[in-house]
Amino acid sequence: MAVQEIHLNADFTGELHKSLRGDQFSVAPADLQTYAIDQGPVSDYQEPLAVVWAESIADVQTVVRAAAAHNVPLVTRGAGTGVSGGAHATRGSVVLNLTRMNRILEINAADEIARVEPGVINGDLNTAVAEHGLMFAPDPASFKISTVGGNIATNAGGLRCAKYGVTRDAVLALDVVMADGSLIHTGHRTFKGVAGYDLTSLFVGSEGTLGIVVGATVRLKYLPTIVRTLAVFFPDVQSAAAGVLALGKARVQPCILELLDGASLHELDFHNGSNLASRGTALLLIQFDGLAAEQEETVAATALEGLGGVASREDPAEAQRLVDLRRNNRGLDVDAENRVGEDVAVPRSQLVHYITALAEMAVRHGVDLQVIAHAGDGNLHPTFSVPTFEPARIAALNAALDESIDKALELGGTITGEHGIGQYKLRWLPLEQASQVLEIQRNIKALFDPQGILNPGKAIAA
Amino acid sequence: MAVQEIHLNADFTGELHKSLRGDQFSVAPADLQTYAIDQGPVSDYQEPLAVVWAESIADVQTVVRAAAAHNVPLVTRGAGTGVSGGAHATRGSVVLNLTRMNRILEINAADEIARVEPGVINGDLNTAVAEHGLMFAPDPASFKISTVGGNIATNAGGLRCAKYGVTRDAVLALDVVMADGSLIHTGHRTFKGVAGYDLTSLFVGSEGTLGIVVGATVRLKYLPTIVRTLAVFFPDVQSAAAGVLALGKARVQPCILELLDGASLHELDFHNGSNLASRGTALLLIQFDGLAAEQEETVAATALEGLGGVASREDPAEAQRLVDLRRNNRGLDVDAENRVGEDVAVPRSQLVHYITALAEMAVRHGVDLQVIAHAGDGNLHPTFSVPTFEPARIAALNAALDESIDKALELGGTITGEHGIGQYKLRWLPLEQASQVLEIQRNIKALFDPQGILNPGKAIAA
Repeated sequence: MAVQEIHLNADFTGELHKSLRGDQFSVAPADLQTYAIDQGPVSDYQEPLAVVWAESIADVQTVVRAAAAHNVPLVTRGAGTGVSGGAHATRGSVVLNLTRMNRILEINAADEIARVEPGVINGDLNTAVAEHGLMFAPDPASFKISTVGGNIATNAGGLRCAKYGVTRDAVLALDVVMADGSLIHTGHRTFKGVAGYDLTSLFVGSEGTLGIVVGATVRLKYLPTIVRTLAVFFPDVQSAAAGVLALGKARVQPCILELLDGASLHELDFHNGSNLASRGTALLLIQFDGLAAEQEETVAATALEGLGGVASREDPAEAQRLVDLRRNNRGLDVDAENRVGEDVAVPRSQLVHYITALAEMAVRHGVDLQVIAHAGDGNLHPTFSVPTFEPARIAALNAALDESIDKALELGGTITGEHGIGQYKLRWLPLEQASQVLEIQRNIKALFDPQGILNPGKAIAA
Repeated sequence: MAVQEIHLNADFTGELHKSLRGDQFSVAPADLQTYAIDQGPVSDYQEPLAVVWAESIADVQTVVRAAAAHNVPLVTRGAGTGVSGGAHATRGSVVLNLTRMNRILEINAADEIARVEPGVINGDLNTAVAEHGLMFAPDPASFKISTVGGNIATNAGGLRCAKYGVTRDAVLALDVVMADGSLIHTGHRTFKGVAGYDLTSLFVGSEGTLGIVVGATVRLKYLPTIVRTLAVFFPDVQSAAAGVLALGKARVQPCILELLDGASLHELDFHNGSNLASRGTALLLIQFDGLAAEQEETVAATALEGLGGVASREDPAEAQRLVDLRRNNRGLDVDAENRVGEDVAVPRSQLVHYITALAEMAVRHGVDLQVIAHAGDGNLHPTFSVPTFEPARIAALNAALDESIDKALELGGTITGEHGIGQYKLRWLPLEQASQVLEIQRNIKALFDPQGILNPGKAIAA
């Protein structure tokens, strides 16, 4: 294998300079550093050779054509809020930044759709469509700063997907620049459509490895006018997890159903001056929306009080504060090698069992643990951490992580509910998927990107 | 090109006979005739060379391996209720019938999932999970006889998908026999999961051209206990179509929102002895479910009465009768060359305009027209018909069909909302999708099925 050229190819930059302005291209050390990583754990820090800001589809095509001509790997990124290292720069790569492609091209309230450029901030789209009584449902914790394009690249989830589904469910059509610089359109503007294979779903969640999403038609949902919020505190986290199943049995469908364990409550209190931990050892934060919200809230409170929960109906201000606290939970400490937020999902019937197992393994490996979960989806974010970077500590952390992954798979779960494989989780992918399935994915990658210039080394197992 | 071998390959049958019982294989003329076609229009009638009934995954693997070894095209089918000819036999093909693989392998009420073999009847699955207060949401009109495997192959829709989504939204994981006879597993048992590319969505709707679905893990939804049904009659079909938009503006989400025009009402009356046409020229049949059903019904009735609709709240027996009438509508007359039920979808804002255009083109081409629509999704089933098979009549019918397709595309629609491309709609696919997109699909097909033995000539453009 040839050694990767580590210097920026002059012909490549020459081609860019013919089409792009000076402020669309940088090799300044500060920029290379800023765009070297996303919010995922870093195990192989690499700075890109350059950063390019595209401002149009034509710009993206220019960059991709030049990259293809000179075999330059491209790491496409939006806000870089991913937590699996999907936007980490790799050796010899150029970062293609799409945040300037941030126009909302169309909002059609009657059709309940919007067309956007990939760099539109999720929160900005939501603000714009709220005027029409609509919402873009995917709401990753980062929604105030993350881009719709990034949401699409990772098939982002969030709090509301318990009721409203994940990003893939909200994407109707895509404009994609392919690895040869050509532009294709997939999908349909209508809610339903079954013409040909579902290329749209194939691109969603593919982390920029099959093509570069330069436009999206998204389906909007009705912004609920009535919202009820219930905070239910439990004496232990197992009871809270059991509450999730009880809600299912009661056949009520929260739009938000979050579980926070005692360690998470303490950390929130420490950073925010709140007093959550004094109210119980675990919290189910539950929100219902729609015309039946109040009825559902009553059904839920009754069901959970029967399990020993202490339910309090929160007023809108306190409800917003609690949801904001939960959303910001991950942001308190960015992941690093000594602090890794996991993203497994298990069948809901296994939640109690899995949470118990996590606590046991944290003790055994001598690592700290806190658990928050999009419990309605069985999607858990246990965060394992150790206080220092000493090799023995990091080894213990990794042993706990590996075991938590094994256990989730053993219970019928997945290694990633919503964050994606990126770069950090590649080591676990072969535990979940058979070699033939991995091979099919490599073959699809080779079909879409024969040179391997689109975010190589991410999303699928080599 | 070599001429296709038209006789059944003796080595192929020899291999089958080693593994299968005699009653799993037939070349009896009655069977070849029975399994020559599905319910789609027939333009090139071909009988298969044989019919094989698989009873296990191993049986499917045996058949596929033998087919691969001897280059025999396989047309996999369930109940054959498709209406695009996706299960029509092609020249020299063998039909692989999966209806005997009809076991429900698991119902897990806590996880809200079921695992099924592909031949399970949709209605049987729904009956079984109803005991747990759950439902399998996709409900094509054929749900009493169609199989879950067939629903998956076509990404079937139905009445309830206005609220609950299409088949793809209900499929979590698949077991698939690949073109070389190997067995793979895709997806996850959890609600969420983003490990690797979304192969599950790629198989859903691929009409048996990429692999043979031999098992599925499906997500169930809560079976509503409260249902309210509203029949709203309008003086003209345009007002009814406008009512669909009015409901959207009122921000209520029906689980069923069907539009029937005057001709459809007359036909239902003729076949069923009902008196729908005497109540108005067009009907919106609307169902709400869940705890807020009554409130939503009131909001809807008010909104639609404002548009000149006459709303009547139907009691459960009459509601069931109306929904059954609607579901059976397509079954009254099977599609043929002189009667073709279309399946376009348009953005909802274009419904009124499109329905007006359809009426105009029917008159101009001298063909009969009736329109029913899953109006909540903008998915229309206009049925064009002519009284005889005279070439001039058929030509007029086809001209009207082609124009209806062109118009739907012009308005931002799709040529197929839920029935699939099959064989019949291949001629329109290049009108919707660019040549590069068609080529990507051919390349994916070649990757999954290099010999081209899996339902060749279907689903994607040659």
